[in-house]
Amino acid sequence: MRNVTKDNITDVFMGYLGEDMNPRLREVMSSLVRHLHSFAREVNLTHEEWNTGIAFLEKAGEISDAERHEFVLLSDVLGLSSLVDMLHSTPEGTSSSVLGPFHITGSPPLAIGGDMRKDFDAPVLLAQGIVKDPSGKPIKGATLDLWQTAPNGLYSSQDPDQDTYSFHGLQTTGADGRYAFTSVKPVEYTVPSDGPVGDILRACGRHPWRPSHLHFIVEAEGYRPLVTEVFPEDDPYLDRDTVFGVREDLVMQYQDMPAGSFPESGFELSGKVDDAYLKVDFDLILVPK
Amino acid sequence: MRNVTKDNITDVFMGYLGEDMNPRLREVMSSLVRHLHSFAREVNLTHEEWNTGIAFLEKAGEISDAERHEFVLLSDVLGLSSLVDMLHSTPEGTSSSVLGPFHITGSPPLAIGGDMRKDFDAPVLLAQGIVKDPSGKPIKGATLDLWQTAPNGLYSSQDPDQDTYSFHGLQTTGADGRYAFTSVKPVEYTVPSDGPVGDILRACGRHPWRPSHLHFIVEAEGYRPLVTEVFPEDDPYLDRDTVFGVREDLVMQYQDMPAGSFPESGFELSGKVDDAYLKVDFDLILVPK
Ligand SMILES: [Fe+2]
Ligand SMILES: [Fe+2]
Repeated sequence: MRNVTKDNITDVFMGYLGEDMNPRLREVMSSLVRHLHSFAREVNLTHEEWNTGIAFLEKAGEISDAERHEFVLLSDVLGLSSLVDMLHSTPEGTSSSVLGPFHITGSPPLAIGGDMRKDFDAPVLLAQGIVKDPSGKPIKGATLDLWQTAPNGLYSSQDPDQDTYSFHGLQTTGADGRYAFTSVKPVEYTVPSDGPVGDILRACGRHPWRPSHLHFIVEAEGYRPLVTEVFPEDDPYLDRDTVFGVREDLVMQYQDMPAGSFPESGFELSGKVDDAYLKVDFDLILVPK
Repeated sequence: MRNVTKDNITDVFMGYLGEDMNPRLREVMSSLVRHLHSFAREVNLTHEEWNTGIAFLEKAGEISDAERHEFVLLSDVLGLSSLVDMLHSTPEGTSSSVLGPFHITGSPPLAIGGDMRKDFDAPVLLAQGIVKDPSGKPIKGATLDLWQTAPNGLYSSQDPDQDTYSFHGLQTTGADGRYAFTSVKPVEYTVPSDGPVGDILRACGRHPWRPSHLHFIVEAEGYRPLVTEVFPEDDPYLDRDTVFGVREDLVMQYQDMPAGSFPESGFELSGKVDDAYLKVDFDLILVPK
């Protein structure tokens, strides 16, 4: 078109798309560009604002590397990551939630009843539950990839004082579908806010906090993998998780258990817990493929 | 919200925005996120597609530096840059068009009638016109920042064989508002297509070509600055400019002038042009601030 105008440019763009292009890519690009153009028209985007946007993207690119994923963080704080999760979760199963940037592969095996707390000085948390299908049947051989923050609010990958796999473990269920481990209560923490995404949060009057959570990736043959988290119901950030990860069925009561009541057997820590401790029961429902 | 769902997440996002934030930023962010979420819902964006998008942004960040602006190029080929231009152009003035990534500051002065062709082997192009206001009154003291490709299709910044300011000049109008210079006809060229934006163009069945053009930035006291281009009406890419820069009033006839008819005086080249040459008349209308 030699007469491109602000009113026809979206159609001109569509006319440029090749007839042989992948139909799904055509669908995605068409929708993306329609919305991008509608946004610019709706707010009457100025050159100066456009410059600010370009500078933001360039800064996000500069700060990114193999460890730091600023564009993922952007997607997280804009709610896009959670929306994509929710678009593909199935109501019969446990809700999925954000993976986050701190998952690492190769976590060491953790026996059922095993311990991730080690020598960290914090009250014991006992987490347990059943991995089951939507009818309630336990799933044998399900693997749970587990990770969380240390009591200082840091994941091992953020903290030179922790071992690589500190507060990481891989547990496999037996015939009863049960998982169980001891740890400490994870603590609330902030997403990285020293980059351009942090600038956006501040400019929007938003905080960078996430409520405390335990991360799970649960996989079993024949079932859809589940990436999820569990949150304590008394967390102060539960209603304002900066990455929109909280779902109603992922909020659990962390029960105060009296001193001397720790389970007697089947736990690595059994002899060492005399004090009061916390307990969370969290069943995980996988949906068949 | 502890019960974030795919249906309420957009409203939850709006609820996170601080009451004291800049009202214009609120307007822009709200519209941006509404459209981003609508896009994801409309195409039912998958995790795999989200991953592809994140990887694209990270690659665009990696290839970008002080010289290479991949996010600007992305905005250009998606039509966003041109749309922002057109949203803020005024119908009484000459249409604006994309700045492009090849403008450099500090171009040397070029006298009226001066020459940019130098020793390059290509037919002479004589470009001239009047800088005027919407009523037709000539504007004295307007500066024209001019730049274009050499006959090999490269801007000086892309071409180690050219001087820094090859095919760049800064001309200032006198009382008659007239500008005039000799050069060569610019040639069509491709936007950089060796990066992730090139991958998008190929996947969409699009070419990376722009029709040939002369770039202008025209400034005068009391008037809005004008960033624009002029295109020859016989260019093969006029109807499919990959950055959507063509406007009807920027397409001009490049007249074939017979040998021996080159203007006799007021031109640096006057004694040297015996052959046929090309001439384009292009008036530039500035709008008062
Ligand atoms: Fe986390
Ligand atoms: Fe250009």
